[in-house]
Amino acid sequence: MQQLTPAQIRQKVRNKEITGNTSGLAKGFVQCNMVILPADWASDFQRFCEQNPRPCPLVAVSENPGDIHLDKVGKGIDIRHDLPSYKVFEHGKLINEVTDVEAYWRDDLVTFFIGCSFSFEEALIDDGIEIRNITENKNVPMYRTNIACTPSEKFSGNMVVSMRPMVPADAIRSVQICDRFPSVHGAPVHFGFPEMIGISDINQPDFGDAVTIRQNEVPVFWACGVTPQVALEQAKPPFCITHSPGCMLVSDITNKSLSTGC
Amino acid sequence: MQQLTPAQIRQKVRNKEITGNTSGLAKGFVQCNMVILPADWASDFQRFCEQNPRPCPLVAVSENPGDIHLDKVGKGIDIRHDLPSYKVFEHGKLINEVTDVEAYWRDDLVTFFIGCSFSFEEALIDDGIEIRNITENKNVPMYRTNIACTPSEKFSGNMVVSMRPMVPADAIRSVQICDRFPSVHGAPVHFGFPEMIGISDINQPDFGDAVTIRQNEVPVFWACGVTPQVALEQAKPPFCITHSPGCMLVSDITNKSLSTGC
Repeated sequence: MQQLTPAQIRQKVRNKEITGNTSGLAKGFVQCNMVILPADWASDFQRFCEQNPRPCPLVAVSENPGDIHLDKVGKGIDIRHDLPSYKVFEHGKLINEVTDVEAYWRDDLVTFFIGCSFSFEEALIDDGIEIRNITENKNVPMYRTNIACTPSEKFSGNMVVSMRPMVPADAIRSVQICDRFPSVHGAPVHFGFPEMIGISDINQPDFGDAVTIRQNEVPVFWACGVTPQVALEQAKPPFCITHSPGCMLVSDITNKSLSTGC
Repeated sequence: MQQLTPAQIRQKVRNKEITGNTSGLAKGFVQCNMVILPADWASDFQRFCEQNPRPCPLVAVSENPGDIHLDKVGKGIDIRHDLPSYKVFEHGKLINEVTDVEAYWRDDLVTFFIGCSFSFEEALIDDGIEIRNITENKNVPMYRTNIACTPSEKFSGNMVVSMRPMVPADAIRSVQICDRFPSVHGAPVHFGFPEMIGISDINQPDFGDAVTIRQNEVPVFWACGVTPQVALEQAKPPFCITHSPGCMLVSDITNKSLSTGC
């Protein structure tokens, strides 16, 4: 079966033929976390992302408030329609989960696309490393930590991490590979000793599913794109739209183009 | 006190004013392990090094048998005089330990300079990472492992590793930094679980001294330049000269120039 292009996938999403998880679609292409904020909150959120590049690596920001296109991320993109599922928040409270946000669009909205672990998971798999959440067909386990993000004026919070168990040689190789992809979370932030970063029970993730950790494996932790969502919960902006978990924007950017090439 | 240049240090070595360990001398410059072999053994040893770049990273090889100069490593170098101490072997047996090898020099000898951990230790310290063997003023602990080197026709053996204990965040940073220095052993080969690589007691190194491993630290293992010496022990060439442990060649090559720059 021929693989769909990112543009074809976005068209199917726009037609409501795809309304769920985008994991595994458009191999080789970057998928993005999304945050949409009013302009008067946007510059401070951008500062928060720039100060915390591991959990909040910015792939792109819309040029002008109200823009519904972002051609450098995907040709012909319509931000209001091209994600399978959106969450709409007011003052930090979820008010709706919808398949398009045309009804909510405003002229002052600024869109942020943030890198996602799908890209580095692909690079690791291409190198022969097993990704446990994929082989066990689960969502990656994610945990709240005691690692404080650098706060901006309005945004703060602790880092959320995702975890993939590996034997030490694969963990080292993962650092080498992921270090080349700073715009999709970069190298791991921790391994081993979950309690050192405030995780009390590795088998009880705060988000996603627990996965098997075998003997001679260590849990390896990456900064996670759920971190900005936690910062949004805390900051409670009057209005905000995000993607629904796992329902990402499929971009035209190749994973390879994100590599710093070393 | 002004630091001596590499050329000044080599001159003091040549004058027998320096006859011991070169650790800490000529900060910023590469120091090298050395192996000297007759030409009829040299090409096979070179193959062994090229097949095992982590433990045996070649910095330079003399161009013609009998060469006593190697200007690309150090201007005006005299290989017979410019190391503080040499070991001379016949058929794998140590026959002498001397401060120069003029009396042993032959027209068929080929010199190999192999990268040394001093270079990456400096890069780690410059990044703020503690190197336990340095703070405890000890030789780095080294261990024989069960990791087989890729054999050449005459040379084989298991990898020897050096160990530095670190908290996980520093271990990750060390992988990122050392990955940029493939010609001085590159990224670690293992961390944690010593038994996985055939080390039965981390407190009983095969070479060097044991160092303190604190709570929340993992032992991090690098391929070690003692590996080629073990391969020489096994291969028993009719004649061979090496540096004495810790008594390295101080080169004119800067550590920075070895970085792949990523």
